[in-house]
Amino acid sequence: MTNPTATLLISCPDQRGLVAKIANFIYANGGNIIHADQHTDFAAGLFLTRIEWQLNGFNLPRELIAPAFNAIAQPLNAKWEIRFSDTVPRIAIWVSRQDHCLFDLIWRQRAKEFIAEIPLVISNHPNLKVVAEQFNIDYQYLPITKDNKLEQEAKQLELLQNYKIDLVVLAKYMQIVSGDFIAKFPQIINIHHSFLPAFVGANPYHRAFERGVKIIGATAHYATADLDAGPIIEQDVVRVSHRDEVEDLVRKGKDLERVVLARAVRLHLQNRVLVYGNRTVVFE
Amino acid sequence: MTNPTATLLISCPDQRGLVAKIANFIYANGGNIIHADQHTDFAAGLFLTRIEWQLNGFNLPRELIAPAFNAIAQPLNAKWEIRFSDTVPRIAIWVSRQDHCLFDLIWRQRAKEFIAEIPLVISNHPNLKVVAEQFNIDYQYLPITKDNKLEQEAKQLELLQNYKIDLVVLAKYMQIVSGDFIAKFPQIINIHHSFLPAFVGANPYHRAFERGVKIIGATAHYATADLDAGPIIEQDVVRVSHRDEVEDLVRKGKDLERVVLARAVRLHLQNRVLVYGNRTVVFE
Amino acid sequence: MTNPTATLLISCPDQRGLVAKIANFIYANGGNIIHADQHTDFAAGLFLTRIEWQLNGFNLPRELIAPAFNAIAQPLNAKWEIRFSDTVPRIAIWVSRQDHCLFDLIWRQRAKEFIAEIPLVISNHPNLKVVAEQFNIDYQYLPITKDNKLEQEAKQLELLQNYKIDLVVLAKYMQIVSGDFIAKFPQIINIHHSFLPAFVGANPYHRAFERGVKIIGATAHYATADLDAGPIIEQDVVRVSHRDEVEDLVRKGKDLERVVLARAVRLHLQNRVLVYGNRTVVFE
Amino acid sequence: MTNPTATLLISCPDQRGLVAKIANFIYANGGNIIHADQHTDFAAGLFLTRIEWQLNGFNLPRELIAPAFNAIAQPLNAKWEIRFSDTVPRIAIWVSRQDHCLFDLIWRQRAKEFIAEIPLVISNHPNLKVVAEQFNIDYQYLPITKDNKLEQEAKQLELLQNYKIDLVVLAKYMQIVSGDFIAKFPQIINIHHSFLPAFVGANPYHRAFERGVKIIGATAHYATADLDAGPIIEQDVVRVSHRDEVEDLVRKGKDLERVVLARAVRLHLQNRVLVYGNRTVVFE
Repeated sequence: MTNPTATLLISCPDQRGLVAKIANFIYANGGNIIHADQHTDFAAGLFLTRIEWQLNGFNLPRELIAPAFNAIAQPLNAKWEIRFSDTVPRIAIWVSRQDHCLFDLIWRQRAKEFIAEIPLVISNHPNLKVVAEQFNIDYQYLPITKDNKLEQEAKQLELLQNYKIDLVVLAKYMQIVSGDFIAKFPQIINIHHSFLPAFVGANPYHRAFERGVKIIGATAHYATADLDAGPIIEQDVVRVSHRDEVEDLVRKGKDLERVVLARAVRLHLQNRVLVYGNRTVVFE
Repeated sequence: MTNPTATLLISCPDQRGLVAKIANFIYANGGNIIHADQHTDFAAGLFLTRIEWQLNGFNLPRELIAPAFNAIAQPLNAKWEIRFSDTVPRIAIWVSRQDHCLFDLIWRQRAKEFIAEIPLVISNHPNLKVVAEQFNIDYQYLPITKDNKLEQEAKQLELLQNYKIDLVVLAKYMQIVSGDFIAKFPQIINIHHSFLPAFVGANPYHRAFERGVKIIGATAHYATADLDAGPIIEQDVVRVSHRDEVEDLVRKGKDLERVVLARAVRLHLQNRVLVYGNRTVVFE
Repeated sequence: MTNPTATLLISCPDQRGLVAKIANFIYANGGNIIHADQHTDFAAGLFLTRIEWQLNGFNLPRELIAPAFNAIAQPLNAKWEIRFSDTVPRIAIWVSRQDHCLFDLIWRQRAKEFIAEIPLVISNHPNLKVVAEQFNIDYQYLPITKDNKLEQEAKQLELLQNYKIDLVVLAKYMQIVSGDFIAKFPQIINIHHSFLPAFVGANPYHRAFERGVKIIGATAHYATADLDAGPIIEQDVVRVSHRDEVEDLVRKGKDLERVVLARAVRLHLQNRVLVYGNRTVVFE
Repeated sequence: MTNPTATLLISCPDQRGLVAKIANFIYANGGNIIHADQHTDFAAGLFLTRIEWQLNGFNLPRELIAPAFNAIAQPLNAKWEIRFSDTVPRIAIWVSRQDHCLFDLIWRQRAKEFIAEIPLVISNHPNLKVVAEQFNIDYQYLPITKDNKLEQEAKQLELLQNYKIDLVVLAKYMQIVSGDFIAKFPQIINIHHSFLPAFVGANPYHRAFERGVKIIGATAHYATADLDAGPIIEQDVVRVSHRDEVEDLVRKGKDLERVVLARAVRLHLQNRVLVYGNRTVVFE
């Protein structure tokens, strides 16, 4: 579908006429809605929606859509954002020593499973430089110690600005990102190698093995100051048995990690994820 | 949620303004939409939607909703139906000798997993009469032979009319229902004990065993004249191995059959299934 | 298979010749092995095996098998037990107010999915008496309060002895069984309505909803003094989304609970579960 | 585990004493069994087993193991093969235009998920040469037309011999390999992009879309003269919905294909797959 589209993500207090008002705005300006999805959280009294329409034939010029919609959104007390499908987001992938998620995300981007640019890889280890170079991606090696963390986070932030990064993907980056950093750059997706909230923190596969679970999982979530506690975007699981050693859990887990992380990144880039409180609505 | 709702299921040729027109109709009459979901089949040029709103505070009396909406639907060339959540549908369950789906459906209805009455069980065998009686459901034993099939189908149809049945559930009814019968009473959900279109027809578990598959499945679909070829509502699968004999496949399959059939019945009763061509849209 | 079998479950320090010694014992006495499975836990230096052979044609009379095998087992420092397939175990099902696991276990026992007798249901509520009576099972109502727990556990223990119970199944029994009780009667399988170790303790579905997980699970495990921490026998999961309210999680969870509990009970009754440390080997 | 092992795969008519005889052979020569698994197909009267033991401390020199075991196997009428874990098998990967399985297999081999060499890629298209070269693997471009097929298969066979290939992996090779070729080189694993036996033949995703299935799958099997009918090694599935276009099925299917094919290749290389009739026993 080369026809560019606009997507509105809206959340506001539930009330009569919301669907009508939003749909009328698009119809009145000649837009053709191709996807519309909504959800009502009755307990929270919250209405959440995602509407996507074709820009061809839409009478409002792009730069006027936001101000025009704002006139509708403000009386509804709505939080909202608009995205255009032909604006290509820029991703920085952060890794440590493991390469499976890095390879996978690059392969998917090359295969156009999602539309984004990947101009930058940041790592606290030097060894994946060769992978980044293989695909002509800049690689910034920023080792982290107890003493230099603050300083390195300042450099990381500067890199994100210089490279005009929209999204950071922690693709098995085995360092804790500070709450301070996240406050400054909140668009961060992390993959945790367990079925959260089981095995929060370090060495989940070892602990899964010790607990003798029969299923392991992986969880992609937005990073928050509270470690492994951010809004969950996607999870998946795989069956294990007593025959699986820790190294088998690691191997099986890698297949989960790359698929779960890739799905979460794709959903995010297609503007299908709406966060409220510590939860996500995923408009699939 | 004891507040009764109305649900519109609509399919029509895709065009601008559909969401706006339908949402306006409900808003103009004071309705509060609680669920709205849509799908566009671009290849077929078809727009499909399900909209549910609360009847409390809706200004149109029930009997006027259909004619009023028809005035909107006709120029759009729309096929549509309306259902009210407090109209309790009546189900006839058809069985042969196996009781697992029968027990399961009755248990779920008692547990209010779906809202329906089950006044009638029809069978070509006498042995499940005791189950029906245990739950105070009428049991009609109509044995089928090559010679009496036409005659018995006439009786079955009469029973459905007498009992004011809205939906027939073939809960492991091991007889072929004629195309003629289905033409007269098309609201029939069947459970087939394979992952269709694999193993159409008789003895799917035996054939799955012979083929050496590593996963087996079950499929719930609307019955059509073409055996096991009707629109699929729901499917699920379970892993098997060389250790599983045919009888293990049958046992594992039963767990699938009852869950898949129950999900399909529930989705149908909640007016979440829209059939077009030989496909379904399931608005979950 | 009406031919009765004997099953040995053995664990011992790993060493050369174990398979040969055990297989020779059976072969020398004319036994025909129909299933043999083994597992080595290299970290623990432990060899675990399950061997099942036909008793027809076996030259040792039943009462001599245990002493004869003991002569082999003792020098190997082995822990072992022997079971005969035609010894029918007796189960007490413990419930509170929910009936889905109770119904399901009774149905499976009637359908011969596992071979056992169910002579007794114990509950801290009176309301499922009608279900037990429907299937001619004795129902003992033993309400639990803070003050009478010790006293009631004494009665429960007495009932288990009087009814010659081999296995207690906690089929959504919403009371904590004391460590003291478990020490006296350790053969207890519990179903926990979460994907352990996530959501240990009370109200797992509410907490899963609050955490915004995308998958929920159920866990069958042996009861231990440490709540929800016993050796896991079986787990399974189902996908949920933002559309699922807590009540949907409960409904979907029930389907998991009954299947996971039934699988665990069946595996236990077929002597396929070997516990060591806090882990299980499940010889499927 | 750097300690090399020997693995026996045996199938023979079921009879008393098989486990004892085989275990005694290994024990008598000082071997330490680390894995033993067996299966009896009662219908076929067939006993199948896989036994793996450490070579360190085994008294028979490697070249004498086969003749020595043959003396035991012949009276049992057994088919058997022996493999040594430190003999590194050589794989040729055959591809057409899609690169996902090729990338994935190479990545897994580099990550040591299985132990093998990949010296050769054969393709009927030139475009993946760049991938092979990236990893220093020879790439042979052999375009296939109606007229040159026989000739090209002769060249393919010659290449397999020159490169001393043990296993061919058809990693989305979209050409039919002739029965004649397979007769000459039977060690071929294929990935079919459907849940066989559903959608045998061409364009399974298009046909799955048309049929409106709710789950799609992938199947890894040994190639046989009868297309898509060979013994199944591994299958897996993923859920789809009406929202998924054919291109989404293709995308989701790719994730299945690479995981299912990789699992099958790994199981084969670890000598865990025993074929009999058109079925496999997979000793996991």
